[in-house]
Amino acid sequence: MRVFGDTASGNCYKVWLLLSLLGKAHEWVAVDILKGETRSPEFLARNANGKIPLLEYAPGAYLAESNAILHYLAEGSAYLPSDRLAHAQVLQWMFFEQYSHEPYIATLRFYLRYLKDPKGHRAEIDKRRGPGYAALGVMERHLADAPFFVGDVVSIADIALYAYTHVAHEGGFSLDDFPAIRAWLARFAALPGYLPMPHRPE
Amino acid sequence: MRVFGDTASGNCYKVWLLLSLLGKAHEWVAVDILKGETRSPEFLARNANGKIPLLEYAPGAYLAESNAILHYLAEGSAYLPSDRLAHAQVLQWMFFEQYSHEPYIATLRFYLRYLKDPKGHRAEIDKRRGPGYAALGVMERHLADAPFFVGDVVSIADIALYAYTHVAHEGGFSLDDFPAIRAWLARFAALPGYLPMPHRPE
Repeated sequence: MRVFGDTASGNCYKVWLLLSLLGKAHEWVAVDILKGETRSPEFLARNANGKIPLLEYAPGAYLAESNAILHYLAEGSAYLPSDRLAHAQVLQWMFFEQYSHEPYIATLRFYLRYLKDPKGHRAEIDKRRGPGYAALGVMERHLADAPFFVGDVVSIADIALYAYTHVAHEGGFSLDDFPAIRAWLARFAALPGYLPMPHRPE
Repeated sequence: MRVFGDTASGNCYKVWLLLSLLGKAHEWVAVDILKGETRSPEFLARNANGKIPLLEYAPGAYLAESNAILHYLAEGSAYLPSDRLAHAQVLQWMFFEQYSHEPYIATLRFYLRYLKDPKGHRAEIDKRRGPGYAALGVMERHLADAPFFVGDVVSIADIALYAYTHVAHEGGFSLDDFPAIRAWLARFAALPGYLPMPHRPE
């Protein structure tokens, strides 16, 4: 099994982290978005949508979308409940992550940490601040009464949301007003097999 | 079972359509986004994220996110394969829909069809045109060799992608250069139990 990715990308880190929690051997193929490596003809032949992470689950056969990869890898493990409702609730939080969280929390981190000229994106940055805090508010409200996102155990919903939430400060978000999120981040980082996100040099 | 939604919204139509294909009885509770009804205290108590569709699967118990609702309703039916890989492929296309398709194809339809002053959003509209066509390109490439998105039968991945693709022209997208998408739309609309999307008056 090979994974094409960049561990400093939250979407890729999700997959790397789950593989560590599951203790699954794999080969990691480093792909650099900033150098345009996801837009090369070779990469587009693997994933027409030109995005990482990408799982090569069998030679020449690929699965895209970080949260679909998590689902594939977690099936049959404790990280994906088999109960019909709990399964759908895990997916509810994963779709929330991709639609209401990632485009704000992750995109601001990308603008502020990786772009050479974040000032050129000031209007875009300002526009994404409110929805990012709104997503954190939805998480805070849920975690006020629950240790994890679905049921009492960690699932791929937590992995999906942890990836960019724990580095939200790199996009200029403060978690000062989100004590339940901070407690959840600490619970998550104490899991056996947990690996911190590797950072690119500043 | 009750569904809170607006059938002229593609995300809500997905749920309405699957319920029809499955022949499942339900109560539809009309919610009008344009009147702010998803931001009322009553609605936010049901879904803190303030979005429709919302499934009340048991009295007072709710499931959000259109694609998670499709998954919940389809489990055990022919619309959701139980094979591990096919299941993940269905989710791959559903995450693609929410991340790479809906924010462009659906948002432009919303701007151009429902906003009173689309001109005020001209820059935003122009910015979303390219990624919308890119998403259609990814779909076209896949459908050139396949009757549906996963395997040889229709699944909730097709339902998720059909919802906004078949009304893409309302957002100013032309399908003239996408013959495989047009053929897939026609195959989909011929399914037994198919219901067209109800339209708000112009």
